[in-house]
Amino acid sequence: MVYMKKKAAGADDIVGKVVRGEISLHKIEDYTDPRSAAMARRKAIETMTGSELESIGSSSLDYSQISNKNAENVIGYMQMPLGVAGPIKINGSNASGEYYVPMATTEGALIASVSRGMKAVTMCGGANARVIKDGMTRAPVFELGSVNDAADFVDWIGRNREGMRKAAESTTSHGKLKEIVPFLMGNNVWIRFSFHTGDAMGMNMVTIASEAACEYIERNFKKARMLSVSGNMCSDKKESAVNNLLGRGKTVVADALIREEVLNNVLKATAASLHNLSVKKNLLGSAMAGSSKFNGHAANMVAAIFAATGQDIAQVVESSSCFTLTEIRGKDLYISVTMPSVEIGTIGGGSSLPTQREALSIMKVSGGGNPPGSNSLKFAEIIASAVLAGELNLLAAQSARELGKAHKALGRNAKA
Amino acid sequence: MVYMKKKAAGADDIVGKVVRGEISLHKIEDYTDPRSAAMARRKAIETMTGSELESIGSSSLDYSQISNKNAENVIGYMQMPLGVAGPIKINGSNASGEYYVPMATTEGALIASVSRGMKAVTMCGGANARVIKDGMTRAPVFELGSVNDAADFVDWIGRNREGMRKAAESTTSHGKLKEIVPFLMGNNVWIRFSFHTGDAMGMNMVTIASEAACEYIERNFKKARMLSVSGNMCSDKKESAVNNLLGRGKTVVADALIREEVLNNVLKATAASLHNLSVKKNLLGSAMAGSSKFNGHAANMVAAIFAATGQDIAQVVESSSCFTLTEIRGKDLYISVTMPSVEIGTIGGGSSLPTQREALSIMKVSGGGNPPGSNSLKFAEIIASAVLAGELNLLAAQSARELGKAHKALGRNAKA
Amino acid sequence: MVYMKKKAAGADDIVGKVVRGEISLHKIEDYTDPRSAAMARRKAIETMTGSELESIGSSSLDYSQISNKNAENVIGYMQMPLGVAGPIKINGSNASGEYYVPMATTEGALIASVSRGMKAVTMCGGANARVIKDGMTRAPVFELGSVNDAADFVDWIGRNREGMRKAAESTTSHGKLKEIVPFLMGNNVWIRFSFHTGDAMGMNMVTIASEAACEYIERNFKKARMLSVSGNMCSDKKESAVNNLLGRGKTVVADALIREEVLNNVLKATAASLHNLSVKKNLLGSAMAGSSKFNGHAANMVAAIFAATGQDIAQVVESSSCFTLTEIRGKDLYISVTMPSVEIGTIGGGSSLPTQREALSIMKVSGGGNPPGSNSLKFAEIIASAVLAGELNLLAAQSARELGKAHKALGRNAKA
Amino acid sequence: MVYMKKKAAGADDIVGKVVRGEISLHKIEDYTDPRSAAMARRKAIETMTGSELESIGSSSLDYSQISNKNAENVIGYMQMPLGVAGPIKINGSNASGEYYVPMATTEGALIASVSRGMKAVTMCGGANARVIKDGMTRAPVFELGSVNDAADFVDWIGRNREGMRKAAESTTSHGKLKEIVPFLMGNNVWIRFSFHTGDAMGMNMVTIASEAACEYIERNFKKARMLSVSGNMCSDKKESAVNNLLGRGKTVVADALIREEVLNNVLKATAASLHNLSVKKNLLGSAMAGSSKFNGHAANMVAAIFAATGQDIAQVVESSSCFTLTEIRGKDLYISVTMPSVEIGTIGGGSSLPTQREALSIMKVSGGGNPPGSNSLKFAEIIASAVLAGELNLLAAQSARELGKAHKALGRNAKA
Repeated sequence: MVYMKKKAAGADDIVGKVVRGEISLHKIEDYTDPRSAAMARRKAIETMTGSELESIGSSSLDYSQISNKNAENVIGYMQMPLGVAGPIKINGSNASGEYYVPMATTEGALIASVSRGMKAVTMCGGANARVIKDGMTRAPVFELGSVNDAADFVDWIGRNREGMRKAAESTTSHGKLKEIVPFLMGNNVWIRFSFHTGDAMGMNMVTIASEAACEYIERNFKKARMLSVSGNMCSDKKESAVNNLLGRGKTVVADALIREEVLNNVLKATAASLHNLSVKKNLLGSAMAGSSKFNGHAANMVAAIFAATGQDIAQVVESSSCFTLTEIRGKDLYISVTMPSVEIGTIGGGSSLPTQREALSIMKVSGGGNPPGSNSLKFAEIIASAVLAGELNLLAAQSARELGKAHKALGRNAKA
Repeated sequence: MVYMKKKAAGADDIVGKVVRGEISLHKIEDYTDPRSAAMARRKAIETMTGSELESIGSSSLDYSQISNKNAENVIGYMQMPLGVAGPIKINGSNASGEYYVPMATTEGALIASVSRGMKAVTMCGGANARVIKDGMTRAPVFELGSVNDAADFVDWIGRNREGMRKAAESTTSHGKLKEIVPFLMGNNVWIRFSFHTGDAMGMNMVTIASEAACEYIERNFKKARMLSVSGNMCSDKKESAVNNLLGRGKTVVADALIREEVLNNVLKATAASLHNLSVKKNLLGSAMAGSSKFNGHAANMVAAIFAATGQDIAQVVESSSCFTLTEIRGKDLYISVTMPSVEIGTIGGGSSLPTQREALSIMKVSGGGNPPGSNSLKFAEIIASAVLAGELNLLAAQSARELGKAHKALGRNAKA
Repeated sequence: MVYMKKKAAGADDIVGKVVRGEISLHKIEDYTDPRSAAMARRKAIETMTGSELESIGSSSLDYSQISNKNAENVIGYMQMPLGVAGPIKINGSNASGEYYVPMATTEGALIASVSRGMKAVTMCGGANARVIKDGMTRAPVFELGSVNDAADFVDWIGRNREGMRKAAESTTSHGKLKEIVPFLMGNNVWIRFSFHTGDAMGMNMVTIASEAACEYIERNFKKARMLSVSGNMCSDKKESAVNNLLGRGKTVVADALIREEVLNNVLKATAASLHNLSVKKNLLGSAMAGSSKFNGHAANMVAAIFAATGQDIAQVVESSSCFTLTEIRGKDLYISVTMPSVEIGTIGGGSSLPTQREALSIMKVSGGGNPPGSNSLKFAEIIASAVLAGELNLLAAQSARELGKAHKALGRNAKA
Repeated sequence: MVYMKKKAAGADDIVGKVVRGEISLHKIEDYTDPRSAAMARRKAIETMTGSELESIGSSSLDYSQISNKNAENVIGYMQMPLGVAGPIKINGSNASGEYYVPMATTEGALIASVSRGMKAVTMCGGANARVIKDGMTRAPVFELGSVNDAADFVDWIGRNREGMRKAAESTTSHGKLKEIVPFLMGNNVWIRFSFHTGDAMGMNMVTIASEAACEYIERNFKKARMLSVSGNMCSDKKESAVNNLLGRGKTVVADALIREEVLNNVLKATAASLHNLSVKKNLLGSAMAGSSKFNGHAANMVAAIFAATGQDIAQVVESSSCFTLTEIRGKDLYISVTMPSVEIGTIGGGSSLPTQREALSIMKVSGGGNPPGSNSLKFAEIIASAVLAGELNLLAAQSARELGKAHKALGRNAKA
């Protein structure tokens, strides 16, 4: 590809101009190709802040594909260790077989501990997993003059679903508007649109489609004024009860029955000890804390897999919502995880960057699935299974009082 | 450094043995140096999963420092675009001056939009910022026989703070036990220990110190049995009311007064429009949704800065807790952010990895501060200021209905 | 009416036998008429506890109608002062005109302060009010063997709505099953049934109908085992996000525009001062506290009206859920209340007791409405309007710092 | 007592004048004695609303003591059936012995079911109960100019506790200021004052004392402006995380071990079935619902006892916060309730009204205790024990699927 340099300038020249404020930091791409621009920007930052950023600039990856797509003001690449956990056997509705799961993390002991949980799950026949709901949401907020106008608006919404649907779907070839749920507070109304977005996480698709629906609304219900296409009832990058109850992205469940001998030999635990801890920690502890997250450390697995695969890591917040439940069955332990809002994509966003795409390919879920949407469903079931394994292992580790020891052994130098 | 190979094996040989299951995935470091081990593991995974992981293996960074410290089963590096936002002027109690803020993200438009907010803040004299509380927590859960025993235990805790403190602090040269708060539910008691951990995020330090305190407790109050060093009242990697109320890590606030001309010219907005949206979206929308997060997208800034600087990205969950408030002052807009639980470190964990350390150095907060602890305080104020800027800009963008447009323009090919 | 005494015994004789344990406390009605039984029980309690209960026994009301319907082990009547607030002008969809509102309370200053708010609202043309949703819920919880069975069950529910509806409605002549919403967590499924119950609050009607639906389910989906007809997702007598989002009983809104002169002259306030307080107290204060109730004291009005009219006062808990919002409009104040779960009836329960029925009649909503259901809709709008008035006045009183003074003046002897 | 009639008027004359608007509804006491005023007001309301309020006016109780203390605009008495549950054996720190518990309710089956639970508890040796914290709170909200001023204010608060304490305690002979906890959000600060209020519930005492503390603050920290003596962090008449975590009123716990034979014979249940239901309903159901109340129906017992004894029934909202926990111990069931915020008094408020005072006397907790405060502590333990019994019985009834049946049998005519 040839870059059209609108303005000519030498590399050193550019750095100097940036430092002197003659070229804005975000305008460097106007003068040179993406890689050179990133390098010039890096040097300018080094000069202006007195820092040395050699490693950040060391990547041999292509810069052209991130230019103005995944990030701005780029100076290089952040590099995070990438390991694999597993394999874990999964008997999902979509994911089926043994999977290695890529995890990018800087937290010692995490991958090892998830792997132990995966070993236990796999020895017991694997994890069952199933996506039970699928829909990406956007919830614009509208302002009206009074509660009566707002109530009329809610009535109107009920009668004009088809108009909104058509307007929304006109903006996208893949997205399908599945649910339209209004919520009223005083003279304000939120409409929570939920879309099927195929293999894409779909946040942008949904935003654009919702804006089109809002334009239709404002044209046809004159008293409603849209304040913002996002009114926090979505809820994006914030855990919420509405996400827990109605779902966002994939709502996915997984379970496994861990046999007594595996509990004893692999996890050094008993069903009774793990169940008691799960109740007291995951249920009572979170209830006492006033948290909506009734689990041990689902966020650890979600964050590491999201980072590895180019998901939006700000969405770890609600994607890590998880109810971890256990039951004693004879001398075995039944364990399940319920994750109401796992927001993921195998196309679009960061998923098409080089290392991220490769990480997805380890699980055979890179790019669009066949049929469309199937890759993201598979991926959701793999995530839930990995979370199940990680939750199981944490209960065992904490029950055996290994937490500090594990960190002492594995992370000593790096932490303390 | 020379690696002591416990067992001799050639590179190809190792890959074959791993694929055939003769060498475990996590045992490869026993046969070769960390880099070679990672490469062998990568090749084995390629073979076993039919994937090509060239980019993941392309890093020229040193593998020896992550071996058994930051990750296990390493196969290479995940690489994420790293840009800079800013500069932003900060008038903090600790951070003072103009700062460029490194952000690692795959979400197009984020850095550009934060930069616009920073420009507006800086034009108005900068952000005021202040850490108002500092303490990393761990909350073990204890089981007793009855409510009377539990109540006696709570009384005992009140009388034996010094013993717990000594036991806890004996395990660490830096950590100081600052608060001991018991919570009782039925026959269960949580003790929420809060430590000053200097420039380290301190989770591991605190875990080890809490375990020591628990050993002291179990020796001296025989009826109490510790079930787990973490009983979810910490609360780690889960947002919670207890974190919002009592803090975790750094509790930090920032504010700015945005003048009318900057609102009009830079943000294309008015104080009235932004304030109205902030109330309806950040306050009412989150109240309606049943969320504890009363902000627009604090998680975006927190996630990108955490990823750039080697923080624990699973802690984005509660570190992104934020109350974004606005007030109309004449024709100006007063805006503040209150972040109760920003969990960060400038030493330890991922912060010492090459690109992450460099990212911290852009803000002059890499490594231990002088005096100790000052770098992490500075860093917290920079994060709060960056969040302030990002929140301000989102209000302006959404108020001007730019959200979909911005994504259309910047992320078109990558998303849709 | 003639009471069939199964066993003959004189009045004094009965007291003696009860005190000596020869007749159980709850069996006295087997020996005499309801009034004599209550008096005998009262004397026995006086004897056994050394108390004097003359006032409790002083009521001249009929005891026969409460016997085994509204209470057991009756010893007399509790008597609570009953006053009226108002009048308040209401322009509701159902309630229209000026209303006096009966309030039973022991808290001095409450009725007076609500009356002042009503005066202000009425002077400004009255309150607009509207019921926007109507449905009483019950949510049985089912246990299954696995997440797959639970997911299959949810699918089955979607396909068998008609069967559940028929089974449920077979138990009642009035109730109509309107919504069936399943929720899944692990191997557990809740089904939230919502019924139209006419003028009755309907909790019992709904319980019986839900049990019938559950019997149908267990007969036809063998793997599901109902653990309890109430699984706390109802949610009865507990505030909850699900009630806030999906409603329970009547979801009702009310608003009013309070003109500047009324603010100044009646409420001694300005729009700006009340709005600022409303934001800082009702929105920020509740957000900081971790409460789902974003109002000042809605519970005061709800409790007093519920007590006066024979509603289930335990349901004050969620019936007092309320979002109180204000906006400055020029120099006027716009105020609204949104109450998602007001659980009321004008027939059944305590509403047919003598004083309670009379209290309802003050508002012309006693007994069944014409058409059926209309009395309870009217009543809901009156409650919301009264809450609106009480909320308005509290803002004014607190803004003027009258709270302590009011209590000092009005409640001095009784309190402090 | 002789009433000083400021203005002379005959009874019929008064009614006419009220109806014609010549005398305000709340001014009638200026013309005649309290009882006559109430009767005149009642007649006026009958005339104006076309209702007949004979029962409301039928009480023979004295009206002089409620005039301007417990209610305004009084037209008579609401009368609610009052029964007794019990006896229940309690082994409390304060309450010790067998207690009959008065309950005012209109909900059939409630007293009977609590009594069954009490029988089971008593047969197993009784309930252990203990108040573990005692303090009534008020939390004024202050506004400052900036986050820095707010942070300075919080620092100042820490250094000036003694000044606030003296100012607050100068207003009361009984109240003692025990805790001062500041919370900061942006430029706003709440100070949560907690007082020991002896046998009084203390809300008014605490309001007046807090106002005095606020005056001291405003005199000495000029930048802080108190917006309201109540800023919703109290939290009064609203459940909240801050109440759950830090307590309000009495924080009280109770437990009992229910032996197998009592489970089988009295409750028709097994430990396993009740424990399973308790987990699935009280823990999982409430977690799924997004409720902060992890219990079955604590509000039922709290509401009925509050109504019987003259407590503020609007405070049922948070006084019914309760964590109901169970454990299987061999074949027995261990059950506990933890109630963080039971707000009660045995003097002041409605507790001195005739029937209410008598109801308290049944439990020997009427009036001030010896030593002061001991009656309210006893009362709290009795409430917790009654809640324990009610919770136990509900689990048994729901587990045996008796709920609808019980209502069918007991409340048929009244409900349906």
